[in-house]
Amino acid sequence: MKIDVFFTPAGLSPGDLAGRAVVVVDLLRASTTIAVALSNGARAILPAASTEEALRIAQNLERDHVLLAGERKSVRIEGFALGNSPLEFTPEVVGGKTIVLATTNGTQALIAAQGAREIVVAAAVNFGVVVQRARSALETSGDLAIVCAGSERRFAIEDAFTAGRLTKMLLPQGGLKRVSVNDGALASLEIARHFGEKWLRALRASAHGRELAALGFGQDLTVCASQDTHPVLPLYADRRITAHRAPQEG
Amino acid sequence: MKIDVFFTPAGLSPGDLAGRAVVVVDLLRASTTIAVALSNGARAILPAASTEEALRIAQNLERDHVLLAGERKSVRIEGFALGNSPLEFTPEVVGGKTIVLATTNGTQALIAAQGAREIVVAAAVNFGVVVQRARSALETSGDLAIVCAGSERRFAIEDAFTAGRLTKMLLPQGGLKRVSVNDGALASLEIARHFGEKWLRALRASAHGRELAALGFGQDLTVCASQDTHPVLPLYADRRITAHRAPQEG
Repeated sequence: MKIDVFFTPAGLSPGDLAGRAVVVVDLLRASTTIAVALSNGARAILPAASTEEALRIAQNLERDHVLLAGERKSVRIEGFALGNSPLEFTPEVVGGKTIVLATTNGTQALIAAQGAREIVVAAAVNFGVVVQRARSALETSGDLAIVCAGSERRFAIEDAFTAGRLTKMLLPQGGLKRVSVNDGALASLEIARHFGEKWLRALRASAHGRELAALGFGQDLTVCASQDTHPVLPLYADRRITAHRAPQEG
Repeated sequence: MKIDVFFTPAGLSPGDLAGRAVVVVDLLRASTTIAVALSNGARAILPAASTEEALRIAQNLERDHVLLAGERKSVRIEGFALGNSPLEFTPEVVGGKTIVLATTNGTQALIAAQGAREIVVAAAVNFGVVVQRARSALETSGDLAIVCAGSERRFAIEDAFTAGRLTKMLLPQGGLKRVSVNDGALASLEIARHFGEKWLRALRASAHGRELAALGFGQDLTVCASQDTHPVLPLYADRRITAHRAPQEG
């Protein structure tokens, strides 16, 4: 059994994730926003790497059903309907809509994972569902990769913390002796141990968290730290993220 | 006061380190080899990013005084006098010589740091000297960046451990309340706390350390884990690393 954690997509080659089950984490705030939006009835999220790409993608969609969302340096992009605060993505606003979401870090991580067998978007708000899916991927293939978005191509402690919590949940009985982990996974376990069960403590310690609080997004931290409030499984495939629905019986 | 730790050079832009005091860490094994070689009388180390670059650099130097050294996937490059094991760099072999050292990870980190005010090469073997120099840089400018070479553009736990030990030594009284640290520095402190004073434990836990041991370089781990055996201060400037000599009095 093998679990790899990568702290940023910067050092990844396309081959590193090909055919693997991958979990992507951008806790502040893209992953959280995506889970909240899908849980609140959005039809799909189309991630874009830039404002320009978001506009280009939106052009090819029916205007009535599309919402442009995204941030630049944590602030809503001018002219876009929504920023990247999960609080904006209410059922009234996003129900039935397709959302084009421009976010640098999260989108880079998703693009790096293209070619994976399955790509799950993980946050605290959907943590339990992600753990379940990751566990079943591990049981099936014996292999999992967790890709942190990081911040501006660099290590972000809130994503590493999330990766560590997930890794810890997935360790088999017997712990590290029965699973092969890379250095990133080892380190993420230490970071998770340090902050314990306290999502908010990790978010408040992080540079990005402090920055968001200073910009007036303090309430976002509380949302991003709330475990299992939006138990949805966002899957990324064919450049869109949709909520996985369990196959219907019959 | 500000301390930043970067886990790989991959996410760095040239501006990030410009004008700063920088410590570069590639514990397994380039940093160690460099410190050992200089301590054993080598005149200078010229880092090269590839076999080809090493050959090109060597061509412009007097043949009698030059040694080609370097590894590819931990093994000595064919035709080169030396590999990258510190045990090879004895006084008899390297005394008075200029060494062209081809090593992927360490060299990338040094190149990323170009434009810094000062670049120090850190290992366990010269740890005390590095701490002293870093402390004085912090006292002078209030600012320090620690750049880990990592492994193949990725996080390496032995470099992060070294960065954490160094950061811990540099914290002022009052600890984290009196210094601004980035997420990398925070995480490195946790990793250092986990392994404690035990360099060898960190090296043995690391993927690279286990790989070296499997290749028969187990003794190298012991050398790379030996603190303050080679108290030399390697400074990188103008594409060469030389031992800093304290200014002579009088």
